Amino acid sequence: MTDSSTNMRLKLPITCFILEIILIILFGVLVEYDEDTDAKKFNKHFNTSMEHSDAENDFYYRYPSFQDVHVMIFIGFGFLMTFLQRYGFSSVGFNFLIAAFSLQWATLMQGFFHGMHGGKIHIGVESMINADFCTGSVLISFGAVLGKTSPVQLMIMAMFEVTLFSVNEFILLSILGTRDAGGSMTIHTFGAYFGLMVTRILYRPNLHKSKHRNGSVYHSDLFAMIGTIYLWMFWPSFNSAVTEHGDAQHRTAMNTYYSLAACTLSSYAMSSLTAHDGKLDMVHIQNAALAGGVAVGTAGEMMLTPFGSMIVGFLAGIISVLGFKYLSPILEEKLKIQDTCGVHNLHGMPGILGAIVGAVTASLATKEVYGNGLGRVFPDVADGREASYQGGIQAVSLAVTLGIALIGGLIVGFILKLPVFGAPHDTTCYEDSLYWEVPGEEAGHEEQLTAVKSEESDKLNS
Amino acid sequence: MTDSSTNMRLKLPITCFILEIILIILFGVLVEYDEDTDAKKFNKHFNTSMEHSDAENDFYYRYPSFQDVHVMIFIGFGFLMTFLQRYGFSSVGFNFLIAAFSLQWATLMQGFFHGMHGGKIHIGVESMINADFCTGSVLISFGAVLGKTSPVQLMIMAMFEVTLFSVNEFILLSILGTRDAGGSMTIHTFGAYFGLMVTRILYRPNLHKSKHRNGSVYHSDLFAMIGTIYLWMFWPSFNSAVTEHGDAQHRTAMNTYYSLAACTLSSYAMSSLTAHDGKLDMVHIQNAALAGGVAVGTAGEMMLTPFGSMIVGFLAGIISVLGFKYLSPILEEKLKIQDTCGVHNLHGMPGILGAIVGAVTASLATKEVYGNGLGRVFPDVADGREASYQGGIQAVSLAVTLGIALIGGLIVGFILKLPVFGAPHDTTCYEDSLYWEVPGEEAGHEEQLTAVKSEESDKLNS
Amino acid sequence: MTDSSTNMRLKLPITCFILEIILIILFGVLVEYDEDTDAKKFNKHFNTSMEHSDAENDFYYRYPSFQDVHVMIFIGFGFLMTFLQRYGFSSVGFNFLIAAFSLQWATLMQGFFHGMHGGKIHIGVESMINADFCTGSVLISFGAVLGKTSPVQLMIMAMFEVTLFSVNEFILLSILGTRDAGGSMTIHTFGAYFGLMVTRILYRPNLHKSKHRNGSVYHSDLFAMIGTIYLWMFWPSFNSAVTEHGDAQHRTAMNTYYSLAACTLSSYAMSSLTAHDGKLDMVHIQNAALAGGVAVGTAGEMMLTPFGSMIVGFLAGIISVLGFKYLSPILEEKLKIQDTCGVHNLHGMPGILGAIVGAVTASLATKEVYGNGLGRVFPDVADGREASYQGGIQAVSLAVTLGIALIGGLIVGFILKLPVFGAPHDTTCYEDSLYWEVPGEEAGHEEQLTAVKSEESDKLNS
Repeated sequence: MTDSSTNMRLKLPITCFILEIILIILFGVLVEYDEDTDAKKFNKHFNTSMEHSDAENDFYYRYPSFQDVHVMIFIGFGFLMTFLQRYGFSSVGFNFLIAAFSLQWATLMQGFFHGMHGGKIHIGVESMINADFCTGSVLISFGAVLGKTSPVQLMIMAMFEVTLFSVNEFILLSILGTRDAGGSMTIHTFGAYFGLMVTRILYRPNLHKSKHRNGSVYHSDLFAMIGTIYLWMFWPSFNSAVTEHGDAQHRTAMNTYYSLAACTLSSYAMSSLTAHDGKLDMVHIQNAALAGGVAVGTAGEMMLTPFGSMIVGFLAGIISVLGFKYLSPILEEKLKIQDTCGVHNLHGMPGILGAIVGAVTASLATKEVYGNGLGRVFPDVADGREASYQGGIQAVSLAVTLGIALIGGLIVGFILKLPVFGAPHDTTCYEDSLYWEVPGEEAGHEEQLTAVKSEESDKLNS
Repeated sequence: MTDSSTNMRLKLPITCFILEIILIILFGVLVEYDEDTDAKKFNKHFNTSMEHSDAENDFYYRYPSFQDVHVMIFIGFGFLMTFLQRYGFSSVGFNFLIAAFSLQWATLMQGFFHGMHGGKIHIGVESMINADFCTGSVLISFGAVLGKTSPVQLMIMAMFEVTLFSVNEFILLSILGTRDAGGSMTIHTFGAYFGLMVTRILYRPNLHKSKHRNGSVYHSDLFAMIGTIYLWMFWPSFNSAVTEHGDAQHRTAMNTYYSLAACTLSSYAMSSLTAHDGKLDMVHIQNAALAGGVAVGTAGEMMLTPFGSMIVGFLAGIISVLGFKYLSPILEEKLKIQDTCGVHNLHGMPGILGAIVGAVTASLATKEVYGNGLGRVFPDVADGREASYQGGIQAVSLAVTLGIALIGGLIVGFILKLPVFGAPHDTTCYEDSLYWEVPGEEAGHEEQLTAVKSEESDKLNS
Repeated sequence: MTDSSTNMRLKLPITCFILEIILIILFGVLVEYDEDTDAKKFNKHFNTSMEHSDAENDFYYRYPSFQDVHVMIFIGFGFLMTFLQRYGFSSVGFNFLIAAFSLQWATLMQGFFHGMHGGKIHIGVESMINADFCTGSVLISFGAVLGKTSPVQLMIMAMFEVTLFSVNEFILLSILGTRDAGGSMTIHTFGAYFGLMVTRILYRPNLHKSKHRNGSVYHSDLFAMIGTIYLWMFWPSFNSAVTEHGDAQHRTAMNTYYSLAACTLSSYAMSSLTAHDGKLDMVHIQNAALAGGVAVGTAGEMMLTPFGSMIVGFLAGIISVLGFKYLSPILEEKLKIQDTCGVHNLHGMPGILGAIVGAVTASLATKEVYGNGLGRVFPDVADGREASYQGGIQAVSLAVTLGIALIGGLIVGFILKLPVFGAPHDTTCYEDSLYWEVPGEEAGHEEQLTAVKSEESDKLNS
């Protein structure tokens, strides 16, 4: 299964080495510890109020959330994609590779756009979370093209996507003043539509030749459930990781918790209802049950209430299962969008729902409800703007995000078509052995079968 | 394997939708943010001492513990039950479904009994932990009936069990003044004996027809070890999650850590000792090694000392393995209790042990040992009651818990026998394909074998 | 496969019971709650400033880090070693057993050497982390001898290794004043070279008789990736768990994060580059990508900068893959070191690199760079010593560590050769069924195959 065009012997090492060396040089030139990570800056008042300073280090507010997000990125996304029977090494392995690259590149790009202090990028736990967030967006796009791209293509895609993500994030958060702590727009909508456009451009008319590997086996579905459950459990940390300290983090986590719980029930209900024999479909459970987390990504930090969160989650689960069941086949047949993981159903539509919910919730914000906390959630509204203005900004942000994602995906898709990146053939998609030394599982199995057979023969004859 | 009585096409969606809609309505009417999650309430002193307030938000004291508990509920319990060879989807999938339902319903029930403020239920991270705790109790009962109930039966069981759990918890914690931070009684004893009574009522004389599936395969045991290890690691967080802040949380976590370590050694020793050929039994390791966490659930927050904790854990491991080896077969044959996961050995007996240890430890409490901390562990004793009175209360609480669990299980067991809930037949227990689209694993495997064979033939002939 | 010499029926229970009973007695005599876990001591100022005290309990600074470390020890190490096709139960199960023992024994040994207060060992969350650290060192050595030792041998090895670890740690941290927060020397270098010497002494010339089991199958490699990814994700917590509060914890976590990211890219690049067909090798990805965490174990808390961390991680990945590819075969052939997991490549060489980086970074420390924080990272330098002196101390510490590890491993290796400990035969290495009841996986599989075949026949004939 190896030929020169798909052989990664030189392509992958060169890509990795060049990118990493550039990263190291840029870090050396541009990056500095921030106030909370630098020994000198943090301890400048050391002798006067040490104890006080230590507990106030942002590390203690955000590091547990960071680690939960980190698990989502590397275990959650990585294992969610192991459902494919012969692509587990690539799913978790390429997830690992492109995430490790993206978080470094995102540190620079995001720092460049909104972390510069006197020509230097200042970093700490919050920038680490933001880098992981940006990485999440790349991994969503990875889900759309899963099984159909070489690791070099993925690295190139990640490089461009991180850049465009940062531009979009800068426009929304810094220029427009959008609120989007959990990234319904910046992460999910962006990552999904970018990836969908890329996979559209990379359309393979003969993908049916690899169709027999585009499915799960029993244990690969269990591995995927590890990914699902971790994403589900830690989504409250994801949405609350970079909100304001105190009530905002607390409220966001709680809203997300209830949205996900409601979403799970509606996902199970819809999965059973839409099957001709009432049997649950693992694809729905693995994905749709998470849509509730996406859909409160924007409004989670607002006074959405658990009641509101549950309604949103409930709807997200329904939409997502319907998407898998009825919309995805249409997208593939009519629009030629081959969306391996169904990211349109988990991140695309729920992301748009989340953006709309956020716009509506923002436009309903009042001093009455938020009290002195208004300025911590909606600084612009606290400064005198109308809440409806904030709602409008949120809606505009969705349009901007969709635009940048689709145009970006279009351009990057064409770049990825360049033959130099070594895309797999139509017959070798969803196949680990193209990129990995795969242990002789079947051979080994056969040997074992033989061994057992002779053992059993021995027993019978003894 | 599908027939009308077990087909979930309408039963499951209707159950999920009705329950979720009722939950949403009740949340809308009854639930409010508490002081630490509400933007207005938390920030009312915003201008005077903001920084101070943020760090004191209960979120920072409890959220890391909450997430550990959350992992135990969804990964720990879910994967612990994947040991069955053909019931992995249902184990982790139904665990997911009934947990997502139970935590919402528990929020209401527990709030109704002890969280009402002016007609409203106030919620925050502590109520989230308590809801997860109550869910844990339901999942223990799930372990007893695993493989023998439809998802609709499980939802109905969860609904009743959460309600009864909350009644029992209210009697113990609010009326009697019992101390039970880690839930030896409220969670483990209650969940185990409730589930055992339910499985007794649902006794299947012909269960042997599914016997061949009531066992593990090599990799299903490895999946189960994921559950075991996560439960083991995070049990210190479980027991300490809702104790008082400060030394109490710290001490509880540490006591649990040492109890579990000692329990692990005694479990391994007993597992090897009771086998005719000295071979370790995965069932013991997966379960008995956890009994040490259950057994310090009550006394963990007290001044039990690591020494005392290790003795308790050591005994719990021994009792638990002996239970699996000698008591479970008797319970099944004589008392007709078909306890799939052996919850009597992991949660039942160790829970009772934990209650007794708690009663004894409480009755030994003195101002001498606890100092000013006495009132934070035993408010009633600090207010002038005798320690022996507290010990008596603890003992009475165990009796109350057993009574409510057994009577509740009896009633709920008979309710679950109603044919409308679609229980599986005796021949289709422990079988995923009744409820799930199961990928053609064996077919796929066979194809692979064939493929390899021809590949190898090619090699030989070339 | 059972004969009297390898039968664990009496050996294992006796070992576990005796060791645990000794541990319990010693805990009873020697161990006390520390200031932050004792109800009386912590609450002595209860009435004056309660709230303040609670947040300052060390629990809130370190418990999240502790839990991350705990996951690394039990899930990370345990599952990393499940890559072997028929040794998954033993990998995760013996990891569990010896870790549970080691953390108790380490509490006593480390407490004896540097935690005594008036004849008593005071313990709390920091001692729990240190006990887990010491356990990590034992598990590294376990990796070297994996598959070739009985559980009793492992317990005996753990007992001696914990003791020697504590001696070495005492010499470094307490006598020499070495800085080694993440344990490049104390944990990784020590554990690796101790284990390598043990496996050298236990050299098996006929190990090729078990060669066919010394490899992975498809799903065992995926289980191993769970271990890898958890180790990778939580390594920032590992290195920062016992540094000073505040900026030091924050900075260490961040340096480790970037070192690991860079290491991942260089590992993938080297793995592909050194394969004749460019295919990635799971062994490299599972191990080499972690070397970046080891290599900043000493310098991570220093002002290494992300730039410096990335260079170190980048080099560590390259060295580690080269070690697996070219050095390990030489070590096995020429030096007769059978290093099952390749701990020399993951912990040995990267540990030495980390020690050297630490020495260099320490010798460059200035008041200029560290400001008032200097005394918190380098107390001796802040007290007037030259930075170059500190650098020298760091270098000497590496030599001391190597010396104690190698001599200790030599002695312990010979002890483990005593026939009483029941080592497996050369033909039964890497085999679970020697120590575990293994479910009849293949038999079950065969049945399933048969079932499917007749099902399919039915279809064809219908």
